Amino acid sequence: MYNVKIYVTYKESILDPQGEAVRGAVHRMGFDEIEDIRMGKYFEIKVAKQADRTVEETIETICDKLLANVVMESYRYEIEAVKETV
Amino acid sequence: MYNVKIYVTYKESILDPQGEAVRGAVHRMGFDEIEDIRMGKYFEIKVAKQADRTVEETIETICDKLLANVVMESYRYEIEAVKETV
Repeated sequence: MYNVKIYVTYKESILDPQGEAVRGAVHRMGFDEIEDIRMGKYFEIKVAKQADRTVEETIETICDKLLANVVMESYRYEIEAVKETV
Repeated sequence: MYNVKIYVTYKESILDPQGEAVRGAVHRMGFDEIEDIRMGKYFEIKVAKQADRTVEETIETICDKLLANVVMESYRYEIEAVKETV
């Protein structure tokens, strides 16, 4: 089994209105040292081993088709293999 | 300056309806090897050095008061110091 962590963020060139709103709120709380906030999505996924495709193929297909809007967002992922105890 | 990454997720005991919905959609796409999906929020924050408080204090205050609902959500963060080029 694999534990996969996926991070989806807006591309650098895309305005992030949620992050801007959070930055405004943080400044109103008095934390002027916060210079920039970008907000994204985070997924923790458990994937079973599959015979006919690799976990990388599975994750990239899911990201491209479902989790990320690849026109505006980019994603990165980390795969951690979990030892199965029998 | 510091680059901080913050991950906010529902606590284990809390139902994650968004993650459940994504899991259903992934299964309808034919990826039955996806066993569990939990969805969270992800923040990338740039923080300037401050004289009267540490970056950890700043981040924890912001998380507790604004970014996470600590009753239902837990958070973790990574701080990376960035060398300033003068």
